[in-house]
Amino acid sequence: MTIPPVKALLFDVFGTVVDWRSSVAREVEALNRAKGFNLDATGFAVAWRALYQPGMDTIRKGERPWVKLDLLHRENLDILLDRFSVRGLPEAERDRLNRAWHRLDPWPDSVPGLTRLKAKFILGTCSNGNVALMVNMAKHAGLPWDVILGAEPAQAYKPQPECYLRSCALLDLPPDACMMVAAHNNDLVAASKCGLRTAFVLRPHEHGPSQTTDRKAEHAFDVVAESFVDLADRLGC
Amino acid sequence: MTIPPVKALLFDVFGTVVDWRSSVAREVEALNRAKGFNLDATGFAVAWRALYQPGMDTIRKGERPWVKLDLLHRENLDILLDRFSVRGLPEAERDRLNRAWHRLDPWPDSVPGLTRLKAKFILGTCSNGNVALMVNMAKHAGLPWDVILGAEPAQAYKPQPECYLRSCALLDLPPDACMMVAAHNNDLVAASKCGLRTAFVLRPHEHGPSQTTDRKAEHAFDVVAESFVDLADRLGC
Repeated sequence: MTIPPVKALLFDVFGTVVDWRSSVAREVEALNRAKGFNLDATGFAVAWRALYQPGMDTIRKGERPWVKLDLLHRENLDILLDRFSVRGLPEAERDRLNRAWHRLDPWPDSVPGLTRLKAKFILGTCSNGNVALMVNMAKHAGLPWDVILGAEPAQAYKPQPECYLRSCALLDLPPDACMMVAAHNNDLVAASKCGLRTAFVLRPHEHGPSQTTDRKAEHAFDVVAESFVDLADRLGC
Repeated sequence: MTIPPVKALLFDVFGTVVDWRSSVAREVEALNRAKGFNLDATGFAVAWRALYQPGMDTIRKGERPWVKLDLLHRENLDILLDRFSVRGLPEAERDRLNRAWHRLDPWPDSVPGLTRLKAKFILGTCSNGNVALMVNMAKHAGLPWDVILGAEPAQAYKPQPECYLRSCALLDLPPDACMMVAAHNNDLVAASKCGLRTAFVLRPHEHGPSQTTDRKAEHAFDVVAESFVDLADRLGC
């Protein structure tokens, strides 16, 4: 399927491009080995992610000025270490663990699909992750972005319209020349309301084998794909 | 020469990475052919570039709010078309000519050198060009940037300190973990005052065969290189 007017693809990243759950759990396992801890690694990763939306919500509501996701991740990590009864972990080790989010691994089809898509489209991130997080992750995972956009340049967290609209504006493109790519129905609905085209990519194991949410496209998105390689096929790359 | 603490290279682009003079002249030649004009193509390119600094100066002095370089280029183009006695060129053709700056060609060593440097360092632009200009140029010229930084994200034009410092901050790096790469002494002096490391790359033909400025490094920069390939050698890539 060819959609001629689309010039740029804007990507959600956590869950859509990279497997945060397994990757963060792996880093917690490494901490277990290094420190003799016995943390539930997957449980820790899931609990950390569960604090993600509440952390941004205070900013979305205007109760707090915009701060980077790295800082929200760190605040939530300190809460969790306490909850998991980890005491006295030194600052440098907390900082290193916090940067687990900079070292997430891609889904197996992400790099092959993006590499094909890059030949035809501008590839930009439109993630709530901050610029340094996105750049370091791209170096770690080999993600061939053309440009890092999203929450930090926009100073707004998805699904706030400013996050999508400012990303398009930085590319000097109208929203309907941009297509948001995500594995999450709510992200695409918000992008669509801003005038962007939409592509749903199925990630049925983002939340593990018993995932109940986002198991299918729940709205009439422009494209629905099984993987990034399938997306490249469907977009004529 | 290996400089272990440097994590990111920040690049000046116009003149350092791409040959604006020949590239813009080529687009003016194309306009001559298409419209039966007889413009001095190189003279037009040089005159356009001569209006570059004055356009930014009003913003640097605070006499005007920050606007994108695309807009400054367009205002200067309209002035020049009038000066060169081109009347009635339609809006779409003026816009297309203005985007000549999005289609500049790299120096022959730029892509090979950047490709080697990318394996070891984060490669960011720190140009006065706006994000769309930089992204479109990278697609045209095959420039393998990891991230687009510089004037638009910083809302400040080099050599204002905010342009360098905000670029480092977006990477969450201290200035001395970043190295500014430029063919212009004044750019590197300004970056150095902000605490960045500096690499001078010689571009003796940016202004044509009789160039008089920036023919050598005039200060004690950390690295002086003959080309981007030489820079890769000197940085141990």
